[in-house]
Amino acid sequence: MSRINVVGSGLVGSLLSIYLVKKGHQVNIYERRPDMRKNRISAGRSINLALSDRGWRGLQGVGIADEIRKVALPMSGRMIHSIEGQVGYQPYGKEGQAINSVSRGGLNCVLMDLAEKNGVNIEFNQRCSKIDLNDALLTVEDSESNKSKTLESDFIIGTDGAYSAARLQLQLNTDRFNYSQSFLEHGYKELTIPAVNGEYAMDPKGLHIWPRGTYMLIALPNLDKSFTCTLFFPFEGENSFEALDTISKARAFFEKIFGDALKLMPDFDKEYAGNPVSSLMTVKCFPWHYKDKLLLIGDAAHAIVPFYGQGMNCGFEDCVVFEELMTKYGNNWTAIFEKFEQLRKPDGDAIADLAVANFVEMRDKVGQAEFLLQKKIEASFSTKHPDKWIPLYTMVTYSPQIRYSEALHEGKRQEKIMQQVMALPGIEQKWESKEVEEFILKLL
Amino acid sequence: MSRINVVGSGLVGSLLSIYLVKKGHQVNIYERRPDMRKNRISAGRSINLALSDRGWRGLQGVGIADEIRKVALPMSGRMIHSIEGQVGYQPYGKEGQAINSVSRGGLNCVLMDLAEKNGVNIEFNQRCSKIDLNDALLTVEDSESNKSKTLESDFIIGTDGAYSAARLQLQLNTDRFNYSQSFLEHGYKELTIPAVNGEYAMDPKGLHIWPRGTYMLIALPNLDKSFTCTLFFPFEGENSFEALDTISKARAFFEKIFGDALKLMPDFDKEYAGNPVSSLMTVKCFPWHYKDKLLLIGDAAHAIVPFYGQGMNCGFEDCVVFEELMTKYGNNWTAIFEKFEQLRKPDGDAIADLAVANFVEMRDKVGQAEFLLQKKIEASFSTKHPDKWIPLYTMVTYSPQIRYSEALHEGKRQEKIMQQVMALPGIEQKWESKEVEEFILKLL
Repeated sequence: MSRINVVGSGLVGSLLSIYLVKKGHQVNIYERRPDMRKNRISAGRSINLALSDRGWRGLQGVGIADEIRKVALPMSGRMIHSIEGQVGYQPYGKEGQAINSVSRGGLNCVLMDLAEKNGVNIEFNQRCSKIDLNDALLTVEDSESNKSKTLESDFIIGTDGAYSAARLQLQLNTDRFNYSQSFLEHGYKELTIPAVNGEYAMDPKGLHIWPRGTYMLIALPNLDKSFTCTLFFPFEGENSFEALDTISKARAFFEKIFGDALKLMPDFDKEYAGNPVSSLMTVKCFPWHYKDKLLLIGDAAHAIVPFYGQGMNCGFEDCVVFEELMTKYGNNWTAIFEKFEQLRKPDGDAIADLAVANFVEMRDKVGQAEFLLQKKIEASFSTKHPDKWIPLYTMVTYSPQIRYSEALHEGKRQEKIMQQVMALPGIEQKWESKEVEEFILKLL
Repeated sequence: MSRINVVGSGLVGSLLSIYLVKKGHQVNIYERRPDMRKNRISAGRSINLALSDRGWRGLQGVGIADEIRKVALPMSGRMIHSIEGQVGYQPYGKEGQAINSVSRGGLNCVLMDLAEKNGVNIEFNQRCSKIDLNDALLTVEDSESNKSKTLESDFIIGTDGAYSAARLQLQLNTDRFNYSQSFLEHGYKELTIPAVNGEYAMDPKGLHIWPRGTYMLIALPNLDKSFTCTLFFPFEGENSFEALDTISKARAFFEKIFGDALKLMPDFDKEYAGNPVSSLMTVKCFPWHYKDKLLLIGDAAHAIVPFYGQGMNCGFEDCVVFEELMTKYGNNWTAIFEKFEQLRKPDGDAIADLAVANFVEMRDKVGQAEFLLQKKIEASFSTKHPDKWIPLYTMVTYSPQIRYSEALHEGKRQEKIMQQVMALPGIEQKWESKEVEEFILKLL
């Protein structure tokens, strides 16, 4: 049995702790924020996340997938809103495949409850202020009393997210820590489409997208029949948060560009003025561990932008991989930490790059006829030859047996082939023909 | 007149401060280390740097180029040592062009003296522990008394080097600060070739290189007739610092690989065992300023690896550019800071990439006949058409009127042309022919 201090009781920290105690270890979590379960009112309306197969595996491993499935809203495809207000549907995969809108706050509460039920001790309002790496000493400061305490353990796991305090200790106190934080030129602001007469104002079976080239609005359904909308928009420039600096400018812009959505937003003025603009960051670093004393997992090791809906799913997959390594290597934590970063670093890098690339797909390509044709050709070929072609989105979202790094590699190969296919004269007419099928088979 | 607090009295901080006071501003420098002038004995033997034309411009601007030239040792080319101990000479440029070995410590002392003579106040043992960005409040901690004080000014300039504490404040306390620190897999260790009977043990007119493919040894002359040698070597792997973990292994390796150098190193055993292995880091970040309150200059903004000999030169060029902007924009510091980072960011990125690329050239290519032929062809063509072709090394090192970013761009264009030239059948025989000259002219 090892004594483990975990920094951060977010989604990954809570789930990982359950895996750790189930292996017989003693786990304390120190969380910077207050206990969100004591103020649950806001949880239902907070950001929603898209849970997919890699995430489900993580939840299955601790036996709560079924419980979560009851409060998840399946979205089987994209609902694309044109500037004229027409809506088109693009399936995400095959019949029966869907991603699931879940409340971040709600899921986090369930995981914390389960962690505590299994014997994990969680202390709140405890900010990690220092880590003595060689002795695995964690110093936390209580945000209410401002008093610090230093805690001993066999090792520390940092699951404290994109702005990880544990990671900062590696940056400041170890040599040769490779680190990058890079920001998109876009930020995001949340808006709400509330229920109308107790019902969803739009079809809740899809992820709604208003693709507008260099920016976009999206909407995901909530359990209370509202939608949380997110505007992804440049910070500066001609069309930007900086330019839309009054409610009337913002409203005029929305009327022109997101007219059908604006009609469903009675609180637009208040929300646009009051809600913050947040930034979008990718973090890459290496190594993820220090000897057998500290390991980073989840966003702390590999924060990504949200456009593939994989941040939480990737973090949960981290937990599954970590569990497998504990099974294989027992209490040889040095081996576990080294194998873990060896295995997961290429996958973390891959999903980070895929997520940035998918922003362009979501905000621009999904609105183009050529892109839709390409997706149709891929789906058609994949149906005929499921052993030879799995579309990239399916590999990433519905195929946890395929590593992110493999999906990225295979996706690039497919894209090269599809460029040749799309260049075929008359492809618009003959895309379902035997000729095109043979052409792809030859290129594979 | 503005009151300016500068963090760091290294080469760039000291030089920049002289430029600032000459414009009529009031400058205080806070330096983390003790005053190196009070312990000057070691300064003569410390690391030497290669001063070239961009650096000279910076020194000329404050009128001390001539003074420094007296203690600089010109190196007009590379002295390449083969594994058999033969030495070949490769000129760095044209007759009369040279880079100059200067003592980092000696130069720093001269610059601090001059800064103080011009009215700059320097306080030592003052570690920057915090910056309140909005109010330009600098908190420093005295390393002897451990007492902190918080200092007001109109703004702060961070010239505190690769591990800048000022930069960390931007990372921790501002949004959308893009940052990366990346390390090479090689580290370095310093060794010494002392004077023999009061004379240089090798020709001091060149920079000595022992290129060995994936690693190398280099040596630069010092004023006291010694050479400071630097071994650039992988941290881990078959041939690595980790593998050479005893004196006898290291000595056996040097005997085989750097035989002629080892013979000139009487203190090898002590130095190899006692001198540390240091890492090699590139830092890129953006933005470099916060409003009109904080600006990063020099390594704090763009730390690079040493293989182009441009770290100090680039930092001094920063000072020259900053001086020009002060002349143009007066006390409009917001404009100066914005223009400065706009101008210098592409150049900082360019020299960072050139420096990494030059490691491969120094440790590997300079030992290859094909590389030597290519350099001869370029030099020959450049002599005939100086308006059409300036070799990359010459652009970077001897042509301060050409920006680093332009040099990088032009260098890539030249490399593409030279690949075609080197592929010409019989190029070894006809490289000086009219045919080859015409061939290059057509490709330009």
